Amino acid sequence: MSAGWFRRRFLPGGPLPAPRPPRPRASPVPYRRPRFLRGSGSGPGSADAPRRPDARPVRSPARGRALPWNAGYAEIINAEKSEFNEDQAACGQLCIRRCEFGAEEDQEWLTLCAEEFLTGHYWALFDGHGGPAAAILAANTLHSCLRRQLEAVVEGMVALQPPMHLSGRCVCPSDPQFVEEKGIRAEDLVIGALENAFQECDEVIGRELEASGQVGGCTALVAVFLQGKLYVANAGDSRAILVRKDEVRPLSSEFTPETERQRIQQLAFVYPELLAGEFTRLEFPRRLKGDDLGQKVLFRDHHMRGWSYKCVEKSDLKYPLIHGQGRQARLLGTLAVSRGLGDHQLRVLDTNIQLKPFLLSVPQLELQEEDVVVMATDGLWDVLSNEQVARLVRSFLPGNQEDPHRFSELAKMLIHSTQGKDDGPTGEGQVSYDDISVFVIPLHSQGQRSSGH
Amino acid sequence: MSAGWFRRRFLPGGPLPAPRPPRPRASPVPYRRPRFLRGSGSGPGSADAPRRPDARPVRSPARGRALPWNAGYAEIINAEKSEFNEDQAACGQLCIRRCEFGAEEDQEWLTLCAEEFLTGHYWALFDGHGGPAAAILAANTLHSCLRRQLEAVVEGMVALQPPMHLSGRCVCPSDPQFVEEKGIRAEDLVIGALENAFQECDEVIGRELEASGQVGGCTALVAVFLQGKLYVANAGDSRAILVRKDEVRPLSSEFTPETERQRIQQLAFVYPELLAGEFTRLEFPRRLKGDDLGQKVLFRDHHMRGWSYKCVEKSDLKYPLIHGQGRQARLLGTLAVSRGLGDHQLRVLDTNIQLKPFLLSVPQLELQEEDVVVMATDGLWDVLSNEQVARLVRSFLPGNQEDPHRFSELAKMLIHSTQGKDDGPTGEGQVSYDDISVFVIPLHSQGQRSSGH
Repeated sequence: MSAGWFRRRFLPGGPLPAPRPPRPRASPVPYRRPRFLRGSGSGPGSADAPRRPDARPVRSPARGRALPWNAGYAEIINAEKSEFNEDQAACGQLCIRRCEFGAEEDQEWLTLCAEEFLTGHYWALFDGHGGPAAAILAANTLHSCLRRQLEAVVEGMVALQPPMHLSGRCVCPSDPQFVEEKGIRAEDLVIGALENAFQECDEVIGRELEASGQVGGCTALVAVFLQGKLYVANAGDSRAILVRKDEVRPLSSEFTPETERQRIQQLAFVYPELLAGEFTRLEFPRRLKGDDLGQKVLFRDHHMRGWSYKCVEKSDLKYPLIHGQGRQARLLGTLAVSRGLGDHQLRVLDTNIQLKPFLLSVPQLELQEEDVVVMATDGLWDVLSNEQVARLVRSFLPGNQEDPHRFSELAKMLIHSTQGKDDGPTGEGQVSYDDISVFVIPLHSQGQRSSGH
Repeated sequence: MSAGWFRRRFLPGGPLPAPRPPRPRASPVPYRRPRFLRGSGSGPGSADAPRRPDARPVRSPARGRALPWNAGYAEIINAEKSEFNEDQAACGQLCIRRCEFGAEEDQEWLTLCAEEFLTGHYWALFDGHGGPAAAILAANTLHSCLRRQLEAVVEGMVALQPPMHLSGRCVCPSDPQFVEEKGIRAEDLVIGALENAFQECDEVIGRELEASGQVGGCTALVAVFLQGKLYVANAGDSRAILVRKDEVRPLSSEFTPETERQRIQQLAFVYPELLAGEFTRLEFPRRLKGDDLGQKVLFRDHHMRGWSYKCVEKSDLKYPLIHGQGRQARLLGTLAVSRGLGDHQLRVLDTNIQLKPFLLSVPQLELQEEDVVVMATDGLWDVLSNEQVARLVRSFLPGNQEDPHRFSELAKMLIHSTQGKDDGPTGEGQVSYDDISVFVIPLHSQGQRSSGH
């Protein structure tokens, strides 16, 4: 295997709808993304929109309701690793139609009947790899998928208890009891909608990239505020944390080859042909070499959280399914994340071994109701721990209570503190060379603004 | 499908080594199991022993060191569901050889050199189904598998840091650094040994049952106290909790078709042929019928923690892969647990559909260091919650500080409080009709007695 064998095999993406120009590293400016409303999915970024009966023409911004831009504050930094920004973000209001309208409905009437909509807020970060293509597609598409998924179940969401049948028809007299016993709540329909939206978006990205001859993938971290509750869905290694007065709590966990080792090894155990005889499923503390043959060395397999010793055989010298430590860990020597969108075409260089069977687009869901959320791509977390970010948030906000731009300033300050220019408030002066995106989302003001609909 | 289609397909087990006679329901007596020491694995319950170089003749009890019988207190009740007790238990001292001895070594010398052994304590509960055969085999075998697994790694366990090579030879100068970076500690070797022991024991049970034409399976809940730490390994629906002065903490979690729904559905998604077209992978709040056809009903699939609606098709009317609610939930209409030992031959009645691919023998591991552990089979937990058991433990022990039999009495009291005879100290008078086994293990006195070796 050549030295370049495990290099990421991507080139910067080709032409795609409205990629953001790279930003100069020295002066990050607040990110303002065009708002999206119902029907914005019909842009080129979501090619399936024309086939959906609910895809309507983009409404003119002037006619839409004002977006709560102060609902979230984003900063994005381009590390100049690639021509286009591999970090992409999207945020805006979600308008979910509560009633069934025919395709011929009057747009004006829809605008007037605001109570026929359930509104929520949406924030999303996508960290691309192999070019920005998948991240841009996801930023343009996922909210439309989510809106459609939510509209498909909205009748159940606004009911006191989700009915067994969406029609409200009761086939079996004890249907409400069955639903009650399973403990199914309106929140579970939102969670299900987010899970299905990730799957749908992944399929759209797969089709779009194939059709346009592009490649790549991205992580996805999404926060949705709906009916007074915050939902966080994560697939990849971005992170969201909740900062409260006396505590800091993770709202997501990272999915990397290391954190998902047992699931990935288990799949290779059940389907050894996925490795095509080129990799070993076993984990060792380092890659083995000829001198280790016949020795008893530390190892672990799919069924083990602990470690044991095994006598090294020739097949153990193959390249490991998961190799490297911490942020250097790679799946099949190629990918640093184990969940995300895209990568349908991705193969190990010079082989036919596919990454996708090991890579899931299934997000992990968290449900929260309080305080301040910080969402950021990995560049921030490389340099600052949860606790350091919490300390920065807690020390910054109380002194800036009157500043209407304090959340935006906080996002900016968090990014600056990773650039090693002024040692930052952490005083540790660590430096990040990655793209960085940060959202700061104040939950309480969200709750006051949008807990109704 | 007939009404009896989902009945457990087992008959009481045939002759097996030393099954305990059924105990009368009315008067549970303290359980005293013959102690096991090194080499006890050469009995008929562990057929692989003769092939191991370390399998030695059973040492006469009179020559072994005294077992700390007051280390754990067990109560077992037979609900008279079957001729033999389906609950089985084992406990005793684990003696792990620290040095390599040849087969010809003088037994006397071994006895004199106690410091060449690492000693620990072992408690295990096995809740059988389809007869007691698997539970009896597990009670007679698992400790031998564990001893062998521990002996295979003991040099690494007693080192300051487990070496990369068991020989201590350093093939690569930075080997200690690789081990350090992976964070591998001596505890991880004990965890790995427990995980491997479960796998090995499962294989032994599979071979033994097949050879003797018997069937069945069992859950396994194992606690091991070694080098001042408590390890709990669980596969099935028994439970261990830690009771401390101000808190109660679960030491295990249950593995049932409900708690492992996503793993099981995922396997059926990847391998649809495992269901032979007879089952549907999807979960619905109740089993669907013809009237539901064409309706949109609540469902969830392998990638969903939440719920959504789908239009019912004919294939959705099949029997569900997982059906029923709570303790009634069954895997393929057959099994109430999703992890355990045995069941290699188990098939859905009148079909060729195997349970084993969905059933794992992989335990979940917890590591603890303090206070009081209560281990019990499901009969106790059916009637008493963790909090109720904790309340009973906390109210009983302080008033009985001087009683040398107080832990034994506590185990007896816990079982009595499930029999509805005297309303028990809970005053709730709920009654269990299942076999019940209870261990009460005081950790601090364990720590004092055996933290050395």
